[in-house]
Amino acid sequence: MTDDATIDTLLETMRTKLYTAVVSDVLDRHGYLEQSMDARIRPVDPEMRVVGRAHTVLSADIYQRPENPYELEIAAIDAVTPGSCVVACTNESTRTCYWGELLSTASRARGGAGTIIDGYTRDTKKIIEMGYPVFSTGFKPVDSSSRSVVVDFGCTIECGGVTVRPGDVVFGDFDGIVVVPIEILPEVVAEAAEKVESENATRDMLLEGHLLRDVYDKYGVL
Amino acid sequence: MTDDATIDTLLETMRTKLYTAVVSDVLDRHGYLEQSMDARIRPVDPEMRVVGRAHTVLSADIYQRPENPYELEIAAIDAVTPGSCVVACTNESTRTCYWGELLSTASRARGGAGTIIDGYTRDTKKIIEMGYPVFSTGFKPVDSSSRSVVVDFGCTIECGGVTVRPGDVVFGDFDGIVVVPIEILPEVVAEAAEKVESENATRDMLLEGHLLRDVYDKYGVL
Amino acid sequence: MTDDATIDTLLETMRTKLYTAVVSDVLDRHGYLEQSMDARIRPVDPEMRVVGRAHTVLSADIYQRPENPYELEIAAIDAVTPGSCVVACTNESTRTCYWGELLSTASRARGGAGTIIDGYTRDTKKIIEMGYPVFSTGFKPVDSSSRSVVVDFGCTIECGGVTVRPGDVVFGDFDGIVVVPIEILPEVVAEAAEKVESENATRDMLLEGHLLRDVYDKYGVL
Amino acid sequence: MTDDATIDTLLETMRTKLYTAVVSDVLDRHGYLEQSMDARIRPVDPEMRVVGRAHTVLSADIYQRPENPYELEIAAIDAVTPGSCVVACTNESTRTCYWGELLSTASRARGGAGTIIDGYTRDTKKIIEMGYPVFSTGFKPVDSSSRSVVVDFGCTIECGGVTVRPGDVVFGDFDGIVVVPIEILPEVVAEAAEKVESENATRDMLLEGHLLRDVYDKYGVL
Amino acid sequence: MTDDATIDTLLETMRTKLYTAVVSDVLDRHGYLEQSMDARIRPVDPEMRVVGRAHTVLSADIYQRPENPYELEIAAIDAVTPGSCVVACTNESTRTCYWGELLSTASRARGGAGTIIDGYTRDTKKIIEMGYPVFSTGFKPVDSSSRSVVVDFGCTIECGGVTVRPGDVVFGDFDGIVVVPIEILPEVVAEAAEKVESENATRDMLLEGHLLRDVYDKYGVL
Amino acid sequence: MTDDATIDTLLETMRTKLYTAVVSDVLDRHGYLEQSMDARIRPVDPEMRVVGRAHTVLSADIYQRPENPYELEIAAIDAVTPGSCVVACTNESTRTCYWGELLSTASRARGGAGTIIDGYTRDTKKIIEMGYPVFSTGFKPVDSSSRSVVVDFGCTIECGGVTVRPGDVVFGDFDGIVVVPIEILPEVVAEAAEKVESENATRDMLLEGHLLRDVYDKYGVL
Repeated sequence: MTDDATIDTLLETMRTKLYTAVVSDVLDRHGYLEQSMDARIRPVDPEMRVVGRAHTVLSADIYQRPENPYELEIAAIDAVTPGSCVVACTNESTRTCYWGELLSTASRARGGAGTIIDGYTRDTKKIIEMGYPVFSTGFKPVDSSSRSVVVDFGCTIECGGVTVRPGDVVFGDFDGIVVVPIEILPEVVAEAAEKVESENATRDMLLEGHLLRDVYDKYGVL
Repeated sequence: MTDDATIDTLLETMRTKLYTAVVSDVLDRHGYLEQSMDARIRPVDPEMRVVGRAHTVLSADIYQRPENPYELEIAAIDAVTPGSCVVACTNESTRTCYWGELLSTASRARGGAGTIIDGYTRDTKKIIEMGYPVFSTGFKPVDSSSRSVVVDFGCTIECGGVTVRPGDVVFGDFDGIVVVPIEILPEVVAEAAEKVESENATRDMLLEGHLLRDVYDKYGVL
Repeated sequence: MTDDATIDTLLETMRTKLYTAVVSDVLDRHGYLEQSMDARIRPVDPEMRVVGRAHTVLSADIYQRPENPYELEIAAIDAVTPGSCVVACTNESTRTCYWGELLSTASRARGGAGTIIDGYTRDTKKIIEMGYPVFSTGFKPVDSSSRSVVVDFGCTIECGGVTVRPGDVVFGDFDGIVVVPIEILPEVVAEAAEKVESENATRDMLLEGHLLRDVYDKYGVL
Repeated sequence: MTDDATIDTLLETMRTKLYTAVVSDVLDRHGYLEQSMDARIRPVDPEMRVVGRAHTVLSADIYQRPENPYELEIAAIDAVTPGSCVVACTNESTRTCYWGELLSTASRARGGAGTIIDGYTRDTKKIIEMGYPVFSTGFKPVDSSSRSVVVDFGCTIECGGVTVRPGDVVFGDFDGIVVVPIEILPEVVAEAAEKVESENATRDMLLEGHLLRDVYDKYGVL
Repeated sequence: MTDDATIDTLLETMRTKLYTAVVSDVLDRHGYLEQSMDARIRPVDPEMRVVGRAHTVLSADIYQRPENPYELEIAAIDAVTPGSCVVACTNESTRTCYWGELLSTASRARGGAGTIIDGYTRDTKKIIEMGYPVFSTGFKPVDSSSRSVVVDFGCTIECGGVTVRPGDVVFGDFDGIVVVPIEILPEVVAEAAEKVESENATRDMLLEGHLLRDVYDKYGVL
Repeated sequence: MTDDATIDTLLETMRTKLYTAVVSDVLDRHGYLEQSMDARIRPVDPEMRVVGRAHTVLSADIYQRPENPYELEIAAIDAVTPGSCVVACTNESTRTCYWGELLSTASRARGGAGTIIDGYTRDTKKIIEMGYPVFSTGFKPVDSSSRSVVVDFGCTIECGGVTVRPGDVVFGDFDGIVVVPIEILPEVVAEAAEKVESENATRDMLLEGHLLRDVYDKYGVL
């Protein structure tokens, strides 16, 4: 079991030295082939990146406004802890819009690192101005209160086709989002840092005009 | 019945003070829950916004070039009036490309405020340079003449899943597009302007670090 | 049969004077109505344009890592010739990610003009920095080695719904991608250059405020 | 307000004399154009028909088995009343299978007239043998307990794109399913019975070989 | 140019001796690879087969009931000639239901051989009882009058992804629908009749237990 | 490791006493939640059932007829062993039709128990007459030779969203198809046979009119 300080250091390495593609390659080597989310989940701004431990939320579409529509939605956000990343499963709803500027503001105030959602966001321009990283499938100006409710949080969910358990590490950049199971984080980060080196060597040799065949035979990475 | 000058003032308020999300929230309160278009309709440039009264056009896919393919297409554009916004239903065609630079130029010359289409556009770079607001589902370089014809205009249509009658108000920004039935425009604009204030107060209190629970209990908006 | 030097001149004209919409219009006139690729294939950067002769690659999804996963993938890239454009058919895979920075680097080193793929890319930020034109349906951080293999290259393929034969000309810009069969390239380029003139005249007349009806009656283009 | 005995008589007329197409036509005349469910919801046996008052159920996909997965599912079925029809919204889940033989048996034991679901069923052969009418989008052999939970019942839902309130009348046959708002049931049944007559006359005249033009001019129905 | 009596004889051969698969194989040999319609178009009864010359109809979705909604719809059916098959393009509408029992009755009264539609039918049970062959993508109980209009007939259309010109031969059975361009009908029928023989020989040899390798080497068909 | 005779006995129990739903429930208990194939794969005849050990085949779409299009296709079928079931991955192709009557005849001649394919079949009426069990996503009359090739067999594949290794047990009936990993076959069959008993008791008690609540509290199965 890795302690929290070590995990923080590993997340810092991810944030500053790694990118999702190299992390995905290392996950492949360990037999974890289904860790990249559906390509429809995109950063709302191309420069956004996020690294954090999953704070999971599960939402369901409804068709009649409940008495207290925001009950669990509020509780879920107030439970955000520093360095965590909200990962929300709406079952790919195209009806509701669960995330927006006020939730982004509230999450950041609790130390939240960002939000990944298999659904829509609104107030998106303001979220971009805030610089709070959000990854979503698109945008809709509607409120959630008559359209969906949070039914649980801190539970195992599926987001973009990947199983996410509370505490797993999520890492998003322009290429997409990978989920790293917390128990293999140390190896993954270490090996990914190494692979970055080989890729740099490969690139240099290609830039010199060598055939891909020769470069691959020498470094063995692609 | 609201007179035209009043409507112009209300549209001006929308354009300068409101955003689609707050207008959608007020429409919800009035029981209008299906006024936001499908999220696949996006501004061709992220900075584009549009406010106007719907000038509706209905197009249908064809497979044999008619004798006068542009007959109604031309008539529809020449009928654009100042401050109106072309709202075009192609039945979500992925075959044709009804809108482009020349129609944008022609619409603007008649005073058109912009175009919303449940289909593709072309000459998109030039449209962006012109700064003429266009919201579409994507881009294709093809001409419409052997692929679709305008079958009617000035009729009730559906665009992005929302019923649009000629003269209804359409409002688009980065978050999407809402349709405001003309008969409730005055209340909607007034209440939306008020809600903007509450949201500002909510945001300020969240920025001070208060829990969402407390902020929501105080202002009642999310 | 047109010689290579003439073709190079024609491609240069396309690159500097034409755009995909006008080329599509001329193809329509010649009865080639199905030459524009699916609108889901987009440039990874809005400024990217590509003109080149198709260097086709065919890839297939797999579920068990083969002994030499990169065999044909490497051979296909080492076979890139100056001025060609890689056109890759993955059968619209959402599972694999065949293209990335290293292949872009290798292709450019051989003189490749760009890449068009009916699937995903990765290392996309680096590709954008390189300025190597790539058109794809999206992004995923995964490697191809356990997910797909190149099964052939230099063969007829389908990409974005259009049949592409090796040596056909592909032309992509912000509006999409058109495929010009090599045997009609000279006429297409010549007529497209002419049509650009008529469109300029039409635009000027519209800017002066004339009705579209009158402008179309005069110039006959839309 | 129509009393229960009258409603029972009207439902009996629907069951014995009407079909969904003629009911849909009368709903159209009254301006109710969105009352037919999505065509993907089909009877599990082509001979099945169902008429009943909607007993609504709302289910949501989950990814972690809850402590009491069947709590509300059981309560919902035990609340079925004679002559009601279970109408279940799963938000078009392709993950779970909420309905099966045991629920069919339990529903029928309470007097349930049938089940309409925007998702899958299982034990389908046994349901067909029972002759209990079920309309679903398909079949899957999986249990719901780790895949979905009932989150509410007796609430307004959406099923197959149509809003269904508890107590509304649902009518399904081979052509599909129409929802009749309870407040207009008497007129709808009366007018539909009349239209059946005109259609019979139209058919007879067509069988005699008359042109459709003449037949339509005479009877005005199609 | 083949005369009508010869064509009738060829259609009779198709009807009695051939099946769609063998016709598709012969079309392949002649380089016609895109003649099979989308698999979503199915016979409404598994025993139905249809052979006829295409009587094409083009319909478009609308959102406001026109003054004379059935004008062209009626004219199109009254123009059916003996031995023709209605082939209707609705642009794959899931909104309307253009075909039903009365149109089937009217078409048959004019000698129509059947109907193929890329959309829905209603009154389906009655159509099955009539034994009038209809191939559709599904069923909906709604009328077309506020949902779609016929915009043309006797024109080139696309149905199920295949271009169909008036007079082309359409052939449907349980496996699907193939379109035979009228100008190659004689060769196609002759070669298909021959291929039926080889397939019978292949089947017999397989039934005797020979390896597929040996059987294929001998007869060369699969 | 279970020997072949024991496995045969277990498969016989599945065939005669079990159904897919009860097998899926037992797989759930063992934590195997993703073993049911996509609901679009259906038996070509509602009475068909299949039990067998997976003989896997992988096919890929192509766009240029290869020199020996049937090479591996023939080898794959000639390698069928008694009691095995062909499980074919076409990557959900809607272009080709890999399976038909001749392959069914050849497979049965080798002792094949049936075929499951994530694509289309042809000659379907004849396959139904043969009584050879085939599960497919639909029907198309086209041949595979210019549309797809077998690229491998006897390898791990994915079919209908489930990973299938050669030798795993596949079980299909009207409700769908479950894949049982060979290493847990004995427990799964034993527990499923037991669960059948509890379900019978539950059904009997429900038929006596007891509330589902009481029945579930007594038997604990649903």
